[in-house]
Amino acid sequence: MIRVLVAHDTSLLRSALAALLVREPDFEVTDTGWHGLSENGRLLGPHVCVVDADCPGWRRHTDRAAAPPAGARGAGVGSGLIVLTNGGKPGNLRRAYTADALGFVNKDRSADRLPAAVRQVAQGKRFVDESLAVEFLQAADMPLTKRELSVLSLSAEGASVAEIARSLHLCNGTVRNYLAAITRKTGARNRVDAIRISRFAGWL
Amino acid sequence: MIRVLVAHDTSLLRSALAALLVREPDFEVTDTGWHGLSENGRLLGPHVCVVDADCPGWRRHTDRAAAPPAGARGAGVGSGLIVLTNGGKPGNLRRAYTADALGFVNKDRSADRLPAAVRQVAQGKRFVDESLAVEFLQAADMPLTKRELSVLSLSAEGASVAEIARSLHLCNGTVRNYLAAITRKTGARNRVDAIRISRFAGWL
Repeated sequence: MIRVLVAHDTSLLRSALAALLVREPDFEVTDTGWHGLSENGRLLGPHVCVVDADCPGWRRHTDRAAAPPAGARGAGVGSGLIVLTNGGKPGNLRRAYTADALGFVNKDRSADRLPAAVRQVAQGKRFVDESLAVEFLQAADMPLTKRELSVLSLSAEGASVAEIARSLHLCNGTVRNYLAAITRKTGARNRVDAIRISRFAGWL
Repeated sequence: MIRVLVAHDTSLLRSALAALLVREPDFEVTDTGWHGLSENGRLLGPHVCVVDADCPGWRRHTDRAAAPPAGARGAGVGSGLIVLTNGGKPGNLRRAYTADALGFVNKDRSADRLPAAVRQVAQGKRFVDESLAVEFLQAADMPLTKRELSVLSLSAEGASVAEIARSLHLCNGTVRNYLAAITRKTGARNRVDAIRISRFAGWL
């Protein structure tokens, strides 16, 4: 039996994803929100963990849960991570890649890809939806630096230039320069457009 | 048998929701994207249609599909609409309400509410998740006018003041006044913040 842990921030959707997977006779499926992720991971020792990359903060939550408890032999949630994403979101893929995900499944494709991905990842093999190839190329091309991303993400939360400057210990002019560089590099028309473009790509 | 049509823009999630519902012995479940909504609605004559309010444009798609074909006896997709939403999004509820939805199900609650909602709505009765009560009150309180929403929605797409003015046949100063009013009425710090707040509430 392959033990599968499904993590999603929305109760109804994680139950639905679990209902899809539990139809496979060789899967033993549990679903959880972020809150119970660490504990479920520890109790169940899942072979595969399935996470939806459109859940805000999924990376932070899985990272925390993946830290193996003292004395454990690496059966953390991190082992055999499958990430679900849509096309057109290279930022999601980059985040999944740096989280050492083994499986990359396109949510816009047929649902029978997911059980296939689970079986492959359970054997420690990589599963990459070929329809995500373009996004993988784009993911290598992320135009913004880490600092620029911090500035943009504060701006997207509604912070003013002065507030961003204070919170990052910069002066106002520097923040304005960062925002201008971000707008240029994302090919945006203005700040709101830069936020929209970066969010759509999954950078933010 | 209750015929249920599940509509969602993401293939994997609509299969998952269908997998959840098909476990009920009295349900006959079909799932569809927006593209096939009209046709599936016409072919199946569903008693209940389940739609996720977080899918962009769901209202437009269901409206179009609900228009009964000539000669039909009103078995359009619109009859028995159940809308799925999260807490904290009064705009979703308002849109669902004006679409004559009968069922309002909270996605953050347990998944067994959904089959109960389907059975109730199939009998032509209303089903309202009591956990959405606060959002219903807030939905009555929508602070922005239709015109302000058009301005804000263009701004959220990255349009400049001049572009918004051109597209709505207004002068630049008027657009600036609208944007100032929007920022004030939503209690936002600035334009980006007003977009963030309105999007979170589901107005945009």
